[in-house]
Amino acid sequence: MRLEKKIIAMADDMRPELVRRRRDIHAHPEPGWTEFRTASLVADALTQAGYLVQTGEDAIKKSAMMGVPDATTLQAAQKRALEQGANPIWVEKMAGGLTGIIATMVFSEHGPTVALRFDMDSNDVSEVQNEQHRPYREGFSSLNANAMHACGHDGHTTVGLAIAQIFSQLKPELQGTVKLIFQPAEEGVRGARAMVENGDVDDVDYMLGAHFGLKMKQTGGIACNVKGFLATSKYDVHFTGVPAHAGAAPETGKNALLAAACAALNLHAIARHSEGVSRINVGTLCAGSGRNIIGDKALMKIETRGGTSAINQYMETEAQRIIKAAAQMYDVAVETEKVGGAAGANNTPALAKYIHQQAEKIGIFNNILDDCDFGASEDCSYFMEQVQAHGGQAAYILIGADLAAGHHDSHFDFDEAAMGYSVKILACTAAGLLLGDNK
Amino acid sequence: MRLEKKIIAMADDMRPELVRRRRDIHAHPEPGWTEFRTASLVADALTQAGYLVQTGEDAIKKSAMMGVPDATTLQAAQKRALEQGANPIWVEKMAGGLTGIIATMVFSEHGPTVALRFDMDSNDVSEVQNEQHRPYREGFSSLNANAMHACGHDGHTTVGLAIAQIFSQLKPELQGTVKLIFQPAEEGVRGARAMVENGDVDDVDYMLGAHFGLKMKQTGGIACNVKGFLATSKYDVHFTGVPAHAGAAPETGKNALLAAACAALNLHAIARHSEGVSRINVGTLCAGSGRNIIGDKALMKIETRGGTSAINQYMETEAQRIIKAAAQMYDVAVETEKVGGAAGANNTPALAKYIHQQAEKIGIFNNILDDCDFGASEDCSYFMEQVQAHGGQAAYILIGADLAAGHHDSHFDFDEAAMGYSVKILACTAAGLLLGDNK
Amino acid sequence: MRLEKKIIAMADDMRPELVRRRRDIHAHPEPGWTEFRTASLVADALTQAGYLVQTGEDAIKKSAMMGVPDATTLQAAQKRALEQGANPIWVEKMAGGLTGIIATMVFSEHGPTVALRFDMDSNDVSEVQNEQHRPYREGFSSLNANAMHACGHDGHTTVGLAIAQIFSQLKPELQGTVKLIFQPAEEGVRGARAMVENGDVDDVDYMLGAHFGLKMKQTGGIACNVKGFLATSKYDVHFTGVPAHAGAAPETGKNALLAAACAALNLHAIARHSEGVSRINVGTLCAGSGRNIIGDKALMKIETRGGTSAINQYMETEAQRIIKAAAQMYDVAVETEKVGGAAGANNTPALAKYIHQQAEKIGIFNNILDDCDFGASEDCSYFMEQVQAHGGQAAYILIGADLAAGHHDSHFDFDEAAMGYSVKILACTAAGLLLGDNK
Amino acid sequence: MRLEKKIIAMADDMRPELVRRRRDIHAHPEPGWTEFRTASLVADALTQAGYLVQTGEDAIKKSAMMGVPDATTLQAAQKRALEQGANPIWVEKMAGGLTGIIATMVFSEHGPTVALRFDMDSNDVSEVQNEQHRPYREGFSSLNANAMHACGHDGHTTVGLAIAQIFSQLKPELQGTVKLIFQPAEEGVRGARAMVENGDVDDVDYMLGAHFGLKMKQTGGIACNVKGFLATSKYDVHFTGVPAHAGAAPETGKNALLAAACAALNLHAIARHSEGVSRINVGTLCAGSGRNIIGDKALMKIETRGGTSAINQYMETEAQRIIKAAAQMYDVAVETEKVGGAAGANNTPALAKYIHQQAEKIGIFNNILDDCDFGASEDCSYFMEQVQAHGGQAAYILIGADLAAGHHDSHFDFDEAAMGYSVKILACTAAGLLLGDNK
Repeated sequence: MRLEKKIIAMADDMRPELVRRRRDIHAHPEPGWTEFRTASLVADALTQAGYLVQTGEDAIKKSAMMGVPDATTLQAAQKRALEQGANPIWVEKMAGGLTGIIATMVFSEHGPTVALRFDMDSNDVSEVQNEQHRPYREGFSSLNANAMHACGHDGHTTVGLAIAQIFSQLKPELQGTVKLIFQPAEEGVRGARAMVENGDVDDVDYMLGAHFGLKMKQTGGIACNVKGFLATSKYDVHFTGVPAHAGAAPETGKNALLAAACAALNLHAIARHSEGVSRINVGTLCAGSGRNIIGDKALMKIETRGGTSAINQYMETEAQRIIKAAAQMYDVAVETEKVGGAAGANNTPALAKYIHQQAEKIGIFNNILDDCDFGASEDCSYFMEQVQAHGGQAAYILIGADLAAGHHDSHFDFDEAAMGYSVKILACTAAGLLLGDNK
Repeated sequence: MRLEKKIIAMADDMRPELVRRRRDIHAHPEPGWTEFRTASLVADALTQAGYLVQTGEDAIKKSAMMGVPDATTLQAAQKRALEQGANPIWVEKMAGGLTGIIATMVFSEHGPTVALRFDMDSNDVSEVQNEQHRPYREGFSSLNANAMHACGHDGHTTVGLAIAQIFSQLKPELQGTVKLIFQPAEEGVRGARAMVENGDVDDVDYMLGAHFGLKMKQTGGIACNVKGFLATSKYDVHFTGVPAHAGAAPETGKNALLAAACAALNLHAIARHSEGVSRINVGTLCAGSGRNIIGDKALMKIETRGGTSAINQYMETEAQRIIKAAAQMYDVAVETEKVGGAAGANNTPALAKYIHQQAEKIGIFNNILDDCDFGASEDCSYFMEQVQAHGGQAAYILIGADLAAGHHDSHFDFDEAAMGYSVKILACTAAGLLLGDNK
Repeated sequence: MRLEKKIIAMADDMRPELVRRRRDIHAHPEPGWTEFRTASLVADALTQAGYLVQTGEDAIKKSAMMGVPDATTLQAAQKRALEQGANPIWVEKMAGGLTGIIATMVFSEHGPTVALRFDMDSNDVSEVQNEQHRPYREGFSSLNANAMHACGHDGHTTVGLAIAQIFSQLKPELQGTVKLIFQPAEEGVRGARAMVENGDVDDVDYMLGAHFGLKMKQTGGIACNVKGFLATSKYDVHFTGVPAHAGAAPETGKNALLAAACAALNLHAIARHSEGVSRINVGTLCAGSGRNIIGDKALMKIETRGGTSAINQYMETEAQRIIKAAAQMYDVAVETEKVGGAAGANNTPALAKYIHQQAEKIGIFNNILDDCDFGASEDCSYFMEQVQAHGGQAAYILIGADLAAGHHDSHFDFDEAAMGYSVKILACTAAGLLLGDNK
Repeated sequence: MRLEKKIIAMADDMRPELVRRRRDIHAHPEPGWTEFRTASLVADALTQAGYLVQTGEDAIKKSAMMGVPDATTLQAAQKRALEQGANPIWVEKMAGGLTGIIATMVFSEHGPTVALRFDMDSNDVSEVQNEQHRPYREGFSSLNANAMHACGHDGHTTVGLAIAQIFSQLKPELQGTVKLIFQPAEEGVRGARAMVENGDVDDVDYMLGAHFGLKMKQTGGIACNVKGFLATSKYDVHFTGVPAHAGAAPETGKNALLAAACAALNLHAIARHSEGVSRINVGTLCAGSGRNIIGDKALMKIETRGGTSAINQYMETEAQRIIKAAAQMYDVAVETEKVGGAAGANNTPALAKYIHQQAEKIGIFNNILDDCDFGASEDCSYFMEQVQAHGGQAAYILIGADLAAGHHDSHFDFDEAAMGYSVKILACTAAGLLLGDNK
C-alpha cells in the first residue's frame, strides 16, 4: 500500500498539469492517421521522461494500416501540425500517417512486461461554439475545422503521459518492463491492427486499456470487467457500371445504383446467427451521376459485427458473396476495400479480479462494478486477443466520468477529474503487476 | 377464277363434314405433346387422301422438343387415346410425344413448295358444363378431365383436313408440292421448334398459317397482314438450397425462397429496350418446405418477350445472368430449363398483299383488314422465320369468328361457319401460289 | 419419502400398461385439432378414474383457436376416429376440433391447485415402413396416412393417463386439487392459447410441463430448468391482385407475386434487436396462376420469434407494417391470419429448484442438469406465463430418452423406458407440491 | 417569295452580329432560373427593337416554377450577372429566378398570333480548356465555373434576337401579332410549365420551336416533323428516418437508406405499358450519415417518361404509390417534390407540311427530312400541347448543325452557320403564317 499511496499523491500533484495538457490536445484535434502534432508532443514528453521511443515504421506495419486518408489530406495535416508546433523530426518519421508510438522502460531484466494502451485520434465532428459549451467558454475548443475530441481521447493521451512520468519517477522501486502504447486511428477501428501486426505486444504479459464514460456516466465509478466487445469489419464498396441516357437507350447502361440498392437490401437480410449477436449495416450509399442517366457508379460504406470473431467472420463471408452477386446481378464491376476492423474480446477473469481488488484497496471509487456489457467495438481488442493468444492476460476498464453530452456529439465534454481516477487505478494496477503483487 | 370457284363449291359441300370432324376433336381434347388420338385420325385421313405421311422421329427432332410432359403423363395419354379410338400403329410411332405430322403431295417435279401449318393441341382448362354453353348443350363438350379446346385448334385441324381433301381431288390441276404441317404443342409455344429443327420447312417457298378469332371477332372478317408477333422464351427455374430450423440455427440454411424472391424482383427491373417492346414475367413462384424451415427449394415459371428476336435475346441474356446472380446471392444451386419459345415475325409484304388480292377476288369477306397488331406470341413464327431466312415468303392471317368468350376461357366457343371461310381463303391462296398466279 | 416410494412402485407396476397404451396411440396418430380418438380415450380413462372431465367448449375458447383445419378435414377426421373406436359421445362434444380436455380431482377444499399439461397431437409426417424401424417391425406404426407421432406426444399422453391413475389411487393421502390438461395442436403452437383464454389455468398455483428428448438424448437424464423458450407468432399472409396477360397488357395487372417477393426480402431485413434473440422466417411462398399471367395471388406462411415476448412483439409489429407496405407497393389487397403463437417463458427458479431436489431424492436419474437452453418454441409457455402472471409458479422439464432419430423425422422413435422416469418425477413433484412439501 | 428573299438577305447581313452575340452569351452561361444577364440583354435588345417586353411575374407563374435553386444560389447568380453587365432594372424584376421573357409586337388588330420559343439556360458542365476546343482557342469559352452552353441554347437565343430585329424592320409588311418567348430552365424541363400556366400562349394560333443538332448532325439539314417527344416528370424524393447506433441499438432506428434502396428496385420493376414507350430512372441516390449509423436520410432524383402524356401519368401514379409504400415499409417519412416535367407532343401535320413547303421554297437546305424520332423530352411540348388544346397548330423542328461533340459534352460546339439557317426558315415560316400564306 505504500507504493499506491505514493502514486495517488503524485497523481494529485499533477492535477493542473493534466488539465493543461488535455486542453492543449483538445484544442488541436487530429483525426486518425494524422495525429502528427499529438504524437509529436507525446514522443517529446516520453523521450524527456527517459523512455525508449519508437514511431514510424518501428511502431507501425505499413501494409496493415486500414482506412488511411489520401496523400493530399496527409500532407495538409503534416503542414498544419508543424504550424501548430509539432517537432519536425518526429513528423518526418511519421510521414504517411505512421503516427503510432511505443515507449519502453526496462526496470529489471527479469519480471513481467506490462503494457498500457492509449488512443490519440479525434472525431470528424465540428465542435459547437457557444457559451453553454465549456471548451468554448474557457477557450480551448477545437481550432481545427471539422475535427473535435468528442470521445475523450484527449484525456486518454493525457493520462498516458502522466503515468509515464510517474513510472519514470518510481523507476528504482519497480521491476520488469513497462510499455506505453499510443495508438492512432481508433475511430473507425483502423489503427490497432497495424501495431499488433508489427509485433508490438508479442512480448507482453499484461495488457491494460481504458476508456472514459460510455456506460459509466458518473465520475467516481469504475467497471472492471468489460464484456461483449463486438468483433467488427469495415468495408468500402465501389460499384462501377456504364452510364446511358435513361430515356433514349436505357438498355445500354449497366446500373451500379441498382446493384448497390440490391446489395443493401440483401445484406440486411443475412440470416441471424444462433450463437450470438450478429450485425450488418450499410451506413451510407451514394450512387449515380444525374437524374436522366443510368446510375453508373456507387459507393457503400458498410460494417459487420459479431458477438465473437467467428460470428463476425460469418457475416463478412456472407457480405462478400452478396456484394459480388449484386454486382453480377447488374453486370457491373465491384471492388471492396477493408478500411477497419476489431476483434471480439473478453477480459481475462483473473486480471479483471485483480483490478477490482486494487480499486477497492485504493479506496477512491464510490461505485465499483464488475460486469459491464460493452455492446460496441473497440480495436483495443486486437491487442487483448494477441496477448491472450500468447498466454498473457488482458483487461479493458471503464472509468466513470460526468458527461456534457453523448460520445461523438458536438456538445461532448467530460469531467476532467476523471483523469485523476484513471491515472491512479491504471498506475497502481500496472505497478502491482510489475511487482508480482497479483500472484 | 375457275379454280377458286371450284374450291369454294367443294368447301361449301363439306360443311356438315367440317362440323362433324370439329366436334369429334372438340370432345377429345389433348394437351401439347399428347395429341395421340388427334394426330392418329389426322394421319389416317391424310393417308387415305393419298398423302405421304411422316410422323414420330421423321417429323420431330426429339432433342429440340420443349416442355414435354413426364413419362407417366405421356403413357396415360397414350392409353386414353387408344381407348378413344386412336390407331395403335400411329400411336406407337408417336411414342414419347412425337405427335407432329408432315403430309406431302407432289403435283409436279417443278414448281414451288407451299406449306400450310395447323396446330392440334388443347388447353389445360376444364370446360364449363351448362346449358348456356353450346358444346355442352349439343353434346360435344370435352370428355377429358382438365382439357378443353378453348383456343380453336380443333377448328384449325379440321380446316387442315378439309384442304387436304380438296387438294387431293384437284391433283391433276395443280403444280409443285404441297406440305401440310400438323403441329403439336402450340400452347406454351413448345412444338414448332422441334419441327423446324427437323428440317421440315427447309425446302418450303411459301408458308401459310392462320388463326380464328383473336382480334378478328366477327365471322366474315380477315386480317391479311398480322404484325407484331412477340418473340418469346419460356423457362422453368429451379433453386435448391439447404433447409435449417428457422429458430434454432437459421445461419446453417441456404435460402432458396429468398433467392427466388430476389430473382423475381430484379427480373422485373430489367431495363426497358429502346428499340421496341420488351417483356418479362415471373408467372408463378412456389418455394419452401414449411413455416419454420429456411426455404430450401423454389420453382419459378418465367417468360421473356421481345418485339424482335434480338430484343427477346437481350431479355433472355439479362434474365439468365440475374437468375445466376440471385442464386449466388443466397449461395444456392440453380438450374434453368427452356420449356418454350417463339420467334419474332412479320408477314412477307408481297405475300400479305397477294392474300389480300385473293380475299377480294373470291368475294366472300365483308371486312378485309391489312395490318393487325398481334401483340402476343405464336410459334408459327419459327416456321415463318426459317422460310424467310431461306428466301421464301411467309404469312399468318386471322380469320374472323364470332366468339362465345375469350380464348382460353372455359366458356370459349366459335362460330363454326368460320371454318368454311378459312378453308376457302387458304386453299385458294395456296392453289394460286402453286400455280404461280402471284407472279 | 414414503409417498415417493409408493409412487415409484405403482409406476413400475404400470410398465406393460404404459407400453400398450403408447403403442395404441402411436398407431392412431391425429394431427392438431383432430385428436378425436385420442381425446376420446383420454376422456374415457379419466372419467373411469373418477375425474371431473371437461371438453369441447367447456375446455376450449373457440374464438381463440388458431390454425384450425377446414370443415372437410375435420369431418373426415371425426369419421375416421369413430371408425377407429372413438366414443361417439365425446366426439360429438368435440365437434369442430374442440379436442382439449381438463380433468379435475379435488382432494381437499384447501390446499394448492397443481396442473400438469400433456400434448396429444401428431405430426404431418409419413412414418417410415421398414424392418429397421421398431414401430413397423413390432406392428404399431401409423395406420393413418401422412400422420405420425414423430415428437413423442403419444408418450406424453400415456404418461398423463398413468399419473391420473396414480393420483386417483392416492386420493386419501393428498390435499388440494389436481388439474390434468390434455392439450390439442401443440405442433404449430396453436392449441394452448385457446385453453388459457378459456380460463383453464386461472386458478392454478403450480404448473408443470415436460417433454421427452430434445436436448436430453439419453434415458436416465433430466433437465430441471429449461430456459430460452422463444416467443413466437405464426401468420398466413394472403395477397390478392389482378391477373393480366403478361405480353399484351402487363400494365393492367396488379402483381401479388411481386408483392410477396418484396415482402419476403424486406421481412428478412428487419433490424436485429439488441436486447436478445430475434427471428423471422418466410417459410413458404406460393404465388401466381400461370407463366404468362401477371401473378394475381400469393400465400406466404411466416413466423416471428423473440427471446422475450416483447422482442417477438417488436418483430410482429415490424412484420405487419412491412406486409401492408408490400401490398401497397403493388397495389394489391392483403389479409393476414394468425395461425399460431407461443409466449416467451422461463421456469420459476424456486420450482425448478424443488424439481431438482425431488429428482435427487428419488434417486433414479443418472444425469441431473439444471440449466438447459431450449432455443425453440413451445406453447406450454402460454400456460406458464398465465400462471406466473397470477403469482403462481411454473416449470417445464426435459426427460432424457434414447432416440432412434431426431424429432419430426420419419424414423423417430424413443426408448419407452423414459415414460416411467417421467411418470415418477412428475407425480412425485406434483404430490409434494399438493402436500406443501416445497415450502 | 419577295418577302422570303428580303428575310434571307437580312439574315445574311446579320452574320457577324449573330456570331458576336452568340459568343458573348456563350462566354457567360447561366443555368436554369439564373439567366439574369442573358435575359437582361434579351430584354434590352427587344425593347430597343420596339417590342412590348414582359418579364418577372408578368411572364412567369411563380407557383408553377419547378426545380428552382435555393436563395443563396439565386443571389450569387444575380450578383454575378450585375458584375457581368446585366441591367439592374431587369434583374430586379426577375428577382427570385423569374427570368422568362415575352416580347409582343402587334402588326394588325386582325390576323393570327404566331409565337416562337427560344431557350436561354446553360448546362451544369465545366467547359474543356484546350486548344482543340474552338471556344477556348478563340477566346469565348465559359467564364462561369461549372456552367457551359453545351446544348446550343446560346445559339437559340441569338436566333431569337435576330428574328426579332427582322420582324421589327418588316413591321409595315406584316399582319397579326408575333410573340417571342424566351424561356428559362429548359434543362431539367423546368421552365415551360410556369409560362404556360401564366397564360402566355393562351391566345396563340401557331407555335414554333426549334433545336440545333440532336439527330440532324450536319449543317444544311432540317427535320420538319419531329415525333416521339417523351412526356416526362422529374421528382426529388426525400426520405427521413431516425438514426441509431448500428451495433448497440439497431432496432431503434428507422432506416431511410433501405427505404430508398427498396423504392429504387421496385420503381424499376413498374410493369411495362403495352401502349407505348415507358421509362423510369432513379438517377441518383444518396443516403446515410455514417458507416455505423442506421441510415437516417436519403435523397433520390428520379424521372418518369411516357410515349404519351397518359403513359407518363401511369408511370407517375405507380411511382408515387411505390415511394409511399417504401417509406411505410421502413416506417420513415417521405416528401416528393416535382422539379421538372414535359408533355408528350407531336407536330400538327398541317404545320409540319407548311414548314416543309417553306424549306423547299427558300431553297437553302440540302437535306429536308419529314419524320424524325425525337426519343427524348423537351418542355417546348408544354407550349405545343397548350396551343393544340385551344385549336391552334404547333411544330418543333430540328436545324442541322455540324457538332464538335455530343450535346451536354464538355467539348460541345456547333457550326455557327447553322444560326443563319434557323433564322431564315423560322422567320420565313412565321411571316408566311402571319400573312395567311399557309391557307
